[in-house]
Amino acid sequence: MSAKEIPYKIYLEEKEMPKQWLNIRAFMKNKPAPLLNPGTLEPVTLEEMSVIFCEELAKQELDETTPYIDIPGEILSFYKMYRPSPLVRAYCLEERLQTPAKIYYKFEGNNTSGSHKLNSAIAQAYYAKNQGLKGVTTETGAGQWGTALSMACAYLGLDCRVYMVKVSYEQKPFRREVMRTYGATVTPSPSDSTEVGRKILKEHPGTTGSLGCAISEAVEAAVSSEGYRYVLGSVLSQVLLHQSVIGLETKTALDKYDIQPDIVIGCAGGGSNLGGLIAPFVRDKLLGKADYRLIAVEPASCPSFTRGRYVYDFCDTGMVTPLAKMYTLGAGFIPAPNHAGGLRYHGMSSVLSQLYHDGVMEATSVTQLDVFKAAEEFARIEGILPAPESAHAIKVAIDEALRCKETGEEKTIVFGLTGTGYFDMIAYEKFHDGKMTDYVPSDEDLQKGFDGIPNVNL
Amino acid sequence: MSAKEIPYKIYLEEKEMPKQWLNIRAFMKNKPAPLLNPGTLEPVTLEEMSVIFCEELAKQELDETTPYIDIPGEILSFYKMYRPSPLVRAYCLEERLQTPAKIYYKFEGNNTSGSHKLNSAIAQAYYAKNQGLKGVTTETGAGQWGTALSMACAYLGLDCRVYMVKVSYEQKPFRREVMRTYGATVTPSPSDSTEVGRKILKEHPGTTGSLGCAISEAVEAAVSSEGYRYVLGSVLSQVLLHQSVIGLETKTALDKYDIQPDIVIGCAGGGSNLGGLIAPFVRDKLLGKADYRLIAVEPASCPSFTRGRYVYDFCDTGMVTPLAKMYTLGAGFIPAPNHAGGLRYHGMSSVLSQLYHDGVMEATSVTQLDVFKAAEEFARIEGILPAPESAHAIKVAIDEALRCKETGEEKTIVFGLTGTGYFDMIAYEKFHDGKMTDYVPSDEDLQKGFDGIPNVNL
Repeated sequence: MSAKEIPYKIYLEEKEMPKQWLNIRAFMKNKPAPLLNPGTLEPVTLEEMSVIFCEELAKQELDETTPYIDIPGEILSFYKMYRPSPLVRAYCLEERLQTPAKIYYKFEGNNTSGSHKLNSAIAQAYYAKNQGLKGVTTETGAGQWGTALSMACAYLGLDCRVYMVKVSYEQKPFRREVMRTYGATVTPSPSDSTEVGRKILKEHPGTTGSLGCAISEAVEAAVSSEGYRYVLGSVLSQVLLHQSVIGLETKTALDKYDIQPDIVIGCAGGGSNLGGLIAPFVRDKLLGKADYRLIAVEPASCPSFTRGRYVYDFCDTGMVTPLAKMYTLGAGFIPAPNHAGGLRYHGMSSVLSQLYHDGVMEATSVTQLDVFKAAEEFARIEGILPAPESAHAIKVAIDEALRCKETGEEKTIVFGLTGTGYFDMIAYEKFHDGKMTDYVPSDEDLQKGFDGIPNVNL
Repeated sequence: MSAKEIPYKIYLEEKEMPKQWLNIRAFMKNKPAPLLNPGTLEPVTLEEMSVIFCEELAKQELDETTPYIDIPGEILSFYKMYRPSPLVRAYCLEERLQTPAKIYYKFEGNNTSGSHKLNSAIAQAYYAKNQGLKGVTTETGAGQWGTALSMACAYLGLDCRVYMVKVSYEQKPFRREVMRTYGATVTPSPSDSTEVGRKILKEHPGTTGSLGCAISEAVEAAVSSEGYRYVLGSVLSQVLLHQSVIGLETKTALDKYDIQPDIVIGCAGGGSNLGGLIAPFVRDKLLGKADYRLIAVEPASCPSFTRGRYVYDFCDTGMVTPLAKMYTLGAGFIPAPNHAGGLRYHGMSSVLSQLYHDGVMEATSVTQLDVFKAAEEFARIEGILPAPESAHAIKVAIDEALRCKETGEEKTIVFGLTGTGYFDMIAYEKFHDGKMTDYVPSDEDLQKGFDGIPNVNL
């Protein structure tokens, strides 16, 4: 099939949409290390987990063996409201770069949450509703996850309480209004509404917050409220499971046109988008069916993969969660205030951490100014104004395409365009006004975070 | 075909996308009255028009006879980047309303401009580029048109100067940054950068501006700059021509599933979305092939159709444009400051004015609080957070669906969901905080606008 027969946007038909999620862990020989109870240092049990999480989600979190899990009908119906998302052939970008590479991106921004986060939000809200709960609590960074969860909860009639990282709450006031439109309550974090929030505020007055802080507060709010559970938008294995719809749709769309990717690229904060996007490619690679370069892109200012340590650490700043073995900068690590947007989590999905450790995937980091430069270039050429998070993947996709231009290789590059930047205009404004700066933490800066890692690593 | 076989979203294939625009005027027995030169009161000539507009666009403006006009290949390529837009079956809304009606909406918000405006922006920028111009000037109200034009100009490498209605410039600061991302210059209007702007500021100090003012400034800026022409996002017949892609895609999608609509609903400010959406339905109605109720929905605070006069009037506040025969509130009419968002133009497309005058279509007006209530309800049920403009159509679609519930009629309702409300969160915030008010101008209020209508009506 000649390239020009491939449409600008490949949309699957409804009947081609995935009906099962893909559980990468089932295909991994080296399973991710189990979550540990920080008190006993024993693997967390289903019972312990079910205090914090909905039971069905706790089961999914612990399930390392079921390769495919049926997507409930009500979730499939909701998916049909905003999915399938298009796999876009970046014809214009290719032409502008004058590259022989073929570039595709899976665009997850065409829903009001503005990102892929809705894929897991509706799943988590569904299981909470199914368990008869009143509501859920959560944290949000850039605000995409909070918006997604608000939408899912509004649809199902669940109460939704969001702790929003303070710097984002202030930089993105309109996100709060979107969440309110969907009926959610939004609190800037750290706040004085929880014990852990008050403690963090006392120890770090004037802190702009972090995902780690917000998680601690949301967990406390859940366990101290009757009929509530905590839900999380990234990092967890259950979230990667739900996000596998991204990769499964991508794979089906590529197969439909006999396209074999060489490189798959995704931005990585906690790993939800990347883990979802690469799921079927990891499966095929582990099964020896195909080979791909799978690349995680993270900000140089929060480099968990590329400069972190692969050890047991807390998932939150307040140290109330189980311990996860992952690439981490230390639960006390808070990115510099000049860092714009998301991807500010100190750790990384334990599934992706294991895959990275085993050499199944690679990782690279990029600096902020390069990211915004790529974002603006992409917007002008391909039309879509990307989220800063997504632009990390754009930057590396462009770099790879330019490398093909040098070598003459006709590689096929697929990247995840996780969302739109409509609520990130303050960051874009800083960039336009020349007020944006780069920040790469020194080894000493990072050492402070490492010093806080609990002394439980065997 | 049973209803359940109709997918949530009908996407056309690329090859099914329209390759020609539809010119409604060619099917009208009573043609819209010609634009007049305000000095001579004679119909404006192509030569006169070409001082303000690109030549090809001036030709399209005057063309009342060609029924279909080929869409140039470069525009078709651009369309493929963000079109076709989905025709969505509102299954969830139908279920929530418990109505036997079948509700569809054509969603034009899935592009960075957030609305249908891009359909005409790329066409106008293309013809400007083709004529060898350096750039274009324009006005923007809510900011959707300015964003759309910025995107089109960035794609083609044209300079773009936008005069933005001051109240929107202040209420929607992030729109400015989106335009800047695409390389445009944005000036709040009225400004002191033009003669007409200085005059308006002197006569109405503290004015929050209007589309009429901004048009005057943009026209002056175009005619006084070498290599520039003026482009307009609504009202003009050329814009309705370009926007016919909305209706043509809608009709093709409906035909594909043998769906016969009973009612087609669109919001109306200057008429670009509505005129585009209903184009093929008007054609078939005028040809006696089918009958439909075609409904324009306008804000009660700016009721050109429902309370305006059908007379010759200036298209702008500064009275520098040709005279158009249209339903108008008077070029001096400025909506009350409590009016949120777009649809604030004093006049109406002369094509739609004639069709309304001839009884081919109807019009109704709705108040602001009802509109935002419908918007929020829709967001929670269907997921998409609509632009306030679009929510005017939602409100009437819901009303019609509830009427079907009373009568038991299984009518098929199609409405235009022109865009998203992501840059309208200040208005939503006012609504949430109970600070939004309704405003319906008194007859005396309107009389002031009518008094300013030039005494040229025969």
